[in-house]
Amino acid sequence: MRKIHVIGIGAGDPDQLTLQAVKALRGTDVFFLLDKGEVKADLTRLRRDMLDTHVPEGTYRVVEARDPERDRSAGGAAYSPAVGDWRSARADIYERLIAEELGEDETGAFLVWGDPSLYDSTLAILEEVLERGAVAFAYDVVPGISSVSALVARHRTGLNRVARPVQITTGRRLAEGFPEGVDDVVVMLDAHQTFRQYAGGNGADGANGTDGADIDIYWGAYLGTPDEILVSGPLAEAAPRIERLRAEARERKGWIMDTYLLRRRTSGR
Amino acid sequence: MRKIHVIGIGAGDPDQLTLQAVKALRGTDVFFLLDKGEVKADLTRLRRDMLDTHVPEGTYRVVEARDPERDRSAGGAAYSPAVGDWRSARADIYERLIAEELGEDETGAFLVWGDPSLYDSTLAILEEVLERGAVAFAYDVVPGISSVSALVARHRTGLNRVARPVQITTGRRLAEGFPEGVDDVVVMLDAHQTFRQYAGGNGADGANGTDGADIDIYWGAYLGTPDEILVSGPLAEAAPRIERLRAEARERKGWIMDTYLLRRRTSGR
Ligand SMILES: C[S@@+](CC[C@H](N)C(=O)[O-])C[C@H]1O[C@@H](n2cnc3c(N)ncnc32)[C@H](O)[C@@H]1O
Ligand SMILES: C[S@@+](CC[C@H](N)C(=O)[O-])C[C@H]1O[C@@H](n2cnc3c(N)ncnc32)[C@H](O)[C@@H]1O
Repeated sequence: MRKIHVIGIGAGDPDQLTLQAVKALRGTDVFFLLDKGEVKADLTRLRRDMLDTHVPEGTYRVVEARDPERDRSAGGAAYSPAVGDWRSARADIYERLIAEELGEDETGAFLVWGDPSLYDSTLAILEEVLERGAVAFAYDVVPGISSVSALVARHRTGLNRVARPVQITTGRRLAEGFPEGVDDVVVMLDAHQTFRQYAGGNGADGANGTDGADIDIYWGAYLGTPDEILVSGPLAEAAPRIERLRAEARERKGWIMDTYLLRRRTSGR
Repeated sequence: MRKIHVIGIGAGDPDQLTLQAVKALRGTDVFFLLDKGEVKADLTRLRRDMLDTHVPEGTYRVVEARDPERDRSAGGAAYSPAVGDWRSARADIYERLIAEELGEDETGAFLVWGDPSLYDSTLAILEEVLERGAVAFAYDVVPGISSVSALVARHRTGLNRVARPVQITTGRRLAEGFPEGVDDVVVMLDAHQTFRQYAGGNGADGANGTDGADIDIYWGAYLGTPDEILVSGPLAEAAPRIERLRAEARERKGWIMDTYLLRRRTSGR
C-alpha cells in the first residue's frame, strides 16, 4: 500500500520544522513539490533547502509539477465554483503523480506551507483523489507552525484574550464587515489591505461599529524569513505605515505574504 | 541583562517540539517549571523528559514552583476579577523566581503547553512583572504546535473550510450560544461537555438554530500522548459515545484534557 505524509513545514523559518516533521521527511521516498508560478519560486527553494539539510542525499527523489492557476477573475458568488474547478484540476495532477511516480511500497510527501489545517487544500484534494478510486493510499498529517502562531509569537502577544474567543478569517470576509461576537480577528489571504476599511476617516465606520480609534493591529509580512517586517499599534496610526511598507516590500521582492491580528479594545463583556 | 524564552512545547507529543524550541532549550541556563497541582504532575514529567532528551546534563538548572490555584468557585460575571487576582499572585511568583534564581547574565525559560498564544497567561504575567519594574529582562516567544493543530491533524481535516472563517472559543462561551457568523468552531477549556447542548433532543435547539442533525464533531483527548482518544461523526450520534469514553478515561487517569471542532453542515453562504 502506498503511503503519503502531508507535512506542515512552518511559515518561513526553517527552524519551525518539528522533530516529527524531520522524521517524516527522512521516511519519505518521493517528495512532490508543486510550484504555484514564478512568484513562489522562493518558497520552492526553501523546501529544497530543507531536504538538503535534513535528508541524506541519495535516499529520496523529488518530483516537481506545476500547480494549475486558480481563476481569480470570477468574483463574489462565483468564488466557490471556481475553487471547485481548480480543486478538481489539482486532483487530476495529484492522482497522476501518485499513480505514476510513487511505487506500490513507497512513501510520498507533500510539504505544506505553515500548518496544513489553515487555508490549504491539500487534504481536500487527497480525499477527492481517494474518492475517485483510481489509486489507493494511506495518509497522515504532520501539524506545522502556522503563520498565525508565528505572527503572534513575534509580536509576543496572545491570539485570544482571557476567556475570550478569536476568529481566523480572510480578507474577503473582513470586507463584508467586522465579524460578530469577537473582538480578536486574524486575517489571512488579504490582497487588498482590508484593514483600511476599519481605520476610520473613510466613512466605513458606523455600519461596522468601529472608527479605528478602538482597534489595535499586529501585522507581519514574510514572517520567519530574513525579509520579515512587523508593525503594531493603534490601527488609525499604523495603517498608513503598513500601506507604505507593504507597497515598498512588494515592489522590491515581487510578491508578499502578510497576516494580521485586529484587536478591538473593550471594557470586557 | 537577563533573558527569558517562552517556549511552546507542543500539546503532548514530545516530537512536536520545533528545531527552534530545541535550540532555545539548549541555550537556557534555568528552567522554571510551574506545577499546577497533582493532576498535572504527568505534564511536568513530560517537560523533564524533554530536557533529559535534548539538553546535555550539567548545563542547566531546574527550579520548580507551585502555581497558585485559581479561584474557580466564582462563576459568571466574577470570572474576570478572579483571573486578575490569580494573575497577580502568579506575577509575584514569577518576579521572585526571575529576581532570585536567574543571574544577571543568564537565560531562563518557561515551557508552555501547546502554543503560548492560546489560552495561556505566561505572556501577560511577564508583561505585568516588567511593568512593576522591580526586575528587568528581555524575552522572546517560540511558537509551538497547539492542541488545536494537533486535533485537526489527527482527524486529517482542516480548521476552516474553503474561504470560510473559524472561531476558537471556550466551553463557557459555547454555553451562551453557538457563535454567530461561523460554522466551524473549536472549543477548548470545556469541563462540562457543552457540545451536548447542541446534540439535539434536550430542548436546546431553536434558540441556537441547531438540533444536532446538521453538526459534525471532531473530538480528541490526551492528543499526542499514548492515551490519545479520537472520536468523530454526526454530533447526535457521537455525543453519547464521547461522554462515555471521557468519563471512563477521566476515572482511569484522574484528569482529562480534551478539545473539539464543531462543524455545521451548510450549503455554503
Ligand atoms: C493559502 S494560506 C496558507 C496558510 C498556511 N497554511 C499557514 O498555516 O500559515 C496563505 C496565507 O497565509 C499567510 N501567510 C503564510 N505565510 C506567511 C508568512 N511567512 N508571513 C505572513 N503571512 C503568511 C498569508 O495571509 C497568506 O495570504
Ligand atoms: C489552558 S489551555 C492551553 C492550551 C495550549 N496553550 C495549546 O496551545 O493547546 C488548556 C486546554 O487546551 C486543550 N488541550 C491542551 N492539550 C491538549 C491535549 N493534549 N489534548 C486535548 N486537548 C488539549 C484542552 O481544551 C484544555 O482545556
